[in-house]
Amino acid sequence: MISKAQVKHIRSLEDKKYRYECKQFTIEGAKMLEECLKSGFEIIQIYALSNWIHRQQPLPGMLTVTTEVSAPELSRISNLKTPQEVLAVVKMPQRDHLPAVSKAIALDQIQDPGNLGSIIRIADWYGIDHLICSMHTADVYKSKVLQATMGSIFRVQCFYTDLRSFFLERSHPDLYACVLDGQNINSLDTKKEGIILIGNEGRGIDPELIALCNYKISIPRIGHAESLNAAVATGIICNKLFG
Amino acid sequence: MISKAQVKHIRSLEDKKYRYECKQFTIEGAKMLEECLKSGFEIIQIYALSNWIHRQQPLPGMLTVTTEVSAPELSRISNLKTPQEVLAVVKMPQRDHLPAVSKAIALDQIQDPGNLGSIIRIADWYGIDHLICSMHTADVYKSKVLQATMGSIFRVQCFYTDLRSFFLERSHPDLYACVLDGQNINSLDTKKEGIILIGNEGRGIDPELIALCNYKISIPRIGHAESLNAAVATGIICNKLFG
Repeated sequence: MISKAQVKHIRSLEDKKYRYECKQFTIEGAKMLEECLKSGFEIIQIYALSNWIHRQQPLPGMLTVTTEVSAPELSRISNLKTPQEVLAVVKMPQRDHLPAVSKAIALDQIQDPGNLGSIIRIADWYGIDHLICSMHTADVYKSKVLQATMGSIFRVQCFYTDLRSFFLERSHPDLYACVLDGQNINSLDTKKEGIILIGNEGRGIDPELIALCNYKISIPRIGHAESLNAAVATGIICNKLFG
Repeated sequence: MISKAQVKHIRSLEDKKYRYECKQFTIEGAKMLEECLKSGFEIIQIYALSNWIHRQQPLPGMLTVTTEVSAPELSRISNLKTPQEVLAVVKMPQRDHLPAVSKAIALDQIQDPGNLGSIIRIADWYGIDHLICSMHTADVYKSKVLQATMGSIFRVQCFYTDLRSFFLERSHPDLYACVLDGQNINSLDTKKEGIILIGNEGRGIDPELIALCNYKISIPRIGHAESLNAAVATGIICNKLFG
């Protein structure tokens, strides 16, 4: 059973402002739960169908936060068209202080949730521990972003900051701005460290930020498309620099 | 003005069966229209707000197929949350006979419209003229796929066929199956020709198809993600083989 107040709370977590006031977000599906349980993230409450509950090897403390719900109750709190068996409310990690980074991806106003989630998954694939987002980048705790990360959100540390100050006020490894008229990335060697800067889907990177980068790099175009999807471009560059 | 019958026809084109019976599909937005007008695709009808109409340099014959509509009329026929200024009904090209291919991407049951659209855009970027889809791959003329191609649909020839027969019955350049336990793609040289085979988002490639390929290739994983998004993987492989 789930109370009306709980339903209201969970549904309100789709609102960014409320989400950050509560410092909580929701995840859905067995795979996301499994990844969350393996991580150090704190689960506040699990809402699950009896099927899911009976399949679990209960971890210490897990059952005390698990509430069994019916399928109609689950669809009332789910953000998915086809709700999966389980939804959990998770505590946001405290990420106030940016650590020193050696390999990172920086995002200037990436807006599409699917792109953002895919980029977090790419970072996880290439062993890049940090994602540094400009303040106007989409929120990593939005449900569509979380689903697209396929659980990588629990392994990549994501920060929001003013990228200009971040680039100016700290010492960094080399900064690589991904632009349309830069050096062919396929002429570069693999790097041990570096920060890759990816821009907004339509406008690209703010020129002020490009000016702060050591390298302007481009993916060679053989055909006619005007651009590549931002996540696809990130993957190609990560493979070249860190693959 | 748009008639009730026209509204019904256009809305029905979102249904795959009806779309193939009529051999027509819809595109939306100024950018898609521009790319379509540059291509050899036949436009059957354009429905546009007066703003769009007055901005055009009318091409020969274009005005005879243009109907001015109001914003409410446009949103009645649009598939977008935020309808753009123009929608057009376009004739599907006849693609009954597969030509000989030198560079191509083959897809085994790609389901996500965004992935499929991004892959068409990647093909266009790397000068790959042909996309060969298994019969159970999503339809390239679905509106979400078309939007994600950003106009590349008008430059990449897409075919649906039984991949097993296609691989067996024809002579091909080398076939590269993208799997999780293959040869590191970063150890390969650039190729002049080849067909890259990409599998379903969850299940990967049908093992019977893998067995027909000359090479099993993989993207090296440094970190912990279980997989990469199918479009991201396609981009990384295309850059390595054809970049």
